[in-house]
Amino acid sequence: MSGRTASQVIRCKAAVAWEAGKPLVIEEVEVAPPQAMEVRVRILFTALCHSDVYFWEAKGQTPLFPRIFGHEAAGIVESVGEGVTDLKPGDHVLPLFTGECKECSHCKSEESNLCTLLRVNTDRGVMLNDGKSRFSIRGQPIHHFLGTSTFSEYTVIHAGCVAKINPNAPLDKVCVISCGVSTGLGATLNVAKPKKGSTVAIFGLGAIGLAAAEGARIAGASRIIGVDRNPMRFLEAKKFGVTEFVNPKDYEKPVQQVIAEMTDGGVDRSVECTGSVDAMISAFECVHDGWGVAVIVGLPSKDDIFKTHPMNLLHERTLKGTFFGNFKPRSGIPTVVERYMNKELEVEKFITHEVPFSEINKSFELMLKGEGIRCLIRMDA
Amino acid sequence: MSGRTASQVIRCKAAVAWEAGKPLVIEEVEVAPPQAMEVRVRILFTALCHSDVYFWEAKGQTPLFPRIFGHEAAGIVESVGEGVTDLKPGDHVLPLFTGECKECSHCKSEESNLCTLLRVNTDRGVMLNDGKSRFSIRGQPIHHFLGTSTFSEYTVIHAGCVAKINPNAPLDKVCVISCGVSTGLGATLNVAKPKKGSTVAIFGLGAIGLAAAEGARIAGASRIIGVDRNPMRFLEAKKFGVTEFVNPKDYEKPVQQVIAEMTDGGVDRSVECTGSVDAMISAFECVHDGWGVAVIVGLPSKDDIFKTHPMNLLHERTLKGTFFGNFKPRSGIPTVVERYMNKELEVEKFITHEVPFSEINKSFELMLKGEGIRCLIRMDA
Repeated sequence: MSGRTASQVIRCKAAVAWEAGKPLVIEEVEVAPPQAMEVRVRILFTALCHSDVYFWEAKGQTPLFPRIFGHEAAGIVESVGEGVTDLKPGDHVLPLFTGECKECSHCKSEESNLCTLLRVNTDRGVMLNDGKSRFSIRGQPIHHFLGTSTFSEYTVIHAGCVAKINPNAPLDKVCVISCGVSTGLGATLNVAKPKKGSTVAIFGLGAIGLAAAEGARIAGASRIIGVDRNPMRFLEAKKFGVTEFVNPKDYEKPVQQVIAEMTDGGVDRSVECTGSVDAMISAFECVHDGWGVAVIVGLPSKDDIFKTHPMNLLHERTLKGTFFGNFKPRSGIPTVVERYMNKELEVEKFITHEVPFSEINKSFELMLKGEGIRCLIRMDA
Repeated sequence: MSGRTASQVIRCKAAVAWEAGKPLVIEEVEVAPPQAMEVRVRILFTALCHSDVYFWEAKGQTPLFPRIFGHEAAGIVESVGEGVTDLKPGDHVLPLFTGECKECSHCKSEESNLCTLLRVNTDRGVMLNDGKSRFSIRGQPIHHFLGTSTFSEYTVIHAGCVAKINPNAPLDKVCVISCGVSTGLGATLNVAKPKKGSTVAIFGLGAIGLAAAEGARIAGASRIIGVDRNPMRFLEAKKFGVTEFVNPKDYEKPVQQVIAEMTDGGVDRSVECTGSVDAMISAFECVHDGWGVAVIVGLPSKDDIFKTHPMNLLHERTLKGTFFGNFKPRSGIPTVVERYMNKELEVEKFITHEVPFSEINKSFELMLKGEGIRCLIRMDA
């Protein structure tokens, strides 16, 4: 198929969001060929992530519609644009909402994954190359989302936002690695770095928090304390290695004090995945003096202020933030797929629901009800 | 002398603070023999540090007088108490205001130096063993300070608060290693860990800040930006490797913005040595996203609150606090002496003044006027 369709406009099905908060509509869209440094990818599986819903609801930002959402996915390269040398038709790939140009100071730093050129941009609805969309319906351009727009059978992505993965990896499983799982897993394994036998607190037991717990389990933590205001989440969290559960609503004292009392002074590591600034403060203050490290993952609101007494720092605590689990998008994400292939990382347990593409709106309903972790969307069904 | 005086009360000269803020008085004191796990040390050189002045002024704490101040010093063990096996009369030592029991969870952690048993205690004026003082004048007990009280020809110290050093090290030089120099040096070398060629900002160019700059110089930083509200300090700071100077008073915009503009987005590392919470916030916000690390050294006021927008963290900045440069007191401080012996660390430039013990009050006057860095006090003169 690649030979036949390369350089041609492809007509295929996409789920278009015409208006904020309204059900997506499956439409026939035209997908233009990839331009320089772009690839066109056939999406086989995608999943719904909170960020899709957040920008679809468009309550906190300038609305950008019509738009094709979707960024957690897996697919196969259909064709490549000019200058793309490290990807070819047939490659198995994960689209990525943030990229790696390999040339800027961030890409050249061993530590950063905040690529200057391809860093996530939620406001941009067009391709970098020419500032235009590759999607249209009867001549009307449809906006991209996060440079991925995976709620389409075919999509065009910057080559720096695509991770080439092991072709033996089952795409219906590893598609969840392209966003949430890597974000939480990396926060623990790459940033918090708990030692074997250590104690870890995870704030927020949604997909990212559970992936952070999975990281603590893989690292050999002896106690993984899950913190969530929803007691229903504990049962599921046990599958991800969470050994104890704390519901802040059950206590009058601050949760950091509850955790310090449970752990003889504090946990060795904490990972904050809720985005609540109060949880961030608790996550920082619940780590042990002398060596505790708190890692902030959750996205705060615009006006939030993180506050703490400086003595909490001077008692040798460390506070770090992370983005996308500190994985370099193109070079790091394939290693997460390998962790799955080596049976270290269990991704199946994240996929609690599955719908055919034609019923994609059901995945939105599940997420809005807070049911399950990830809903897989099969493009061919 | 050790054989003759061991187990005996020693009569010697000490500088006694009878009242808050009043000149010290050189008195003949009685120094009791060391009890279990204690050593008696003949002090040869001591220096004045801000903490001595702070507790002598006693403006912010419960006053504890009469008291013998002093904690930055060097001396020779005169005798040891029961159970002390790793120190013997004649050993060259640095007294330490914080200790290392080698048995608690902090001492057993590779990272912490906040020993549970011997962690600094500014309120205690007596020995741990029996809750009593080893100093007296005509039967009246005189309080200890920080467990060291080095403004005395002889003092009694817990064996866990004494670092045995290379006997070839000149005590009149290495005495300044026992507090300020190690605090600043370690903040940079052990905590901020700048790579060769990196950019480092140092907030506050007093003794600790200059020692932090010295650490950056030793680490091979390419640019060391000194930040201080006193422009007189830049000339001296150049000797410690500071290459550029920023006076926040010269700008209308926040100093973090000034530094970000000077360094294409921020410094790689910053070290905050003033204790001002505003400087702490600036020091954190002036580090580069993706990899920047800010280290807080200065002691804040009781009611200070550190505030920042959580996005500053999520852009992959790290905030760490340190105490005593993260050096383990007994095992780490001798390595700083070795850095001096290897000519890596230059301690001479910290010692800008010198007075005989009889004129110790002059060192207080110099510090109150903000003159010089360290004033060496020679006990035998």
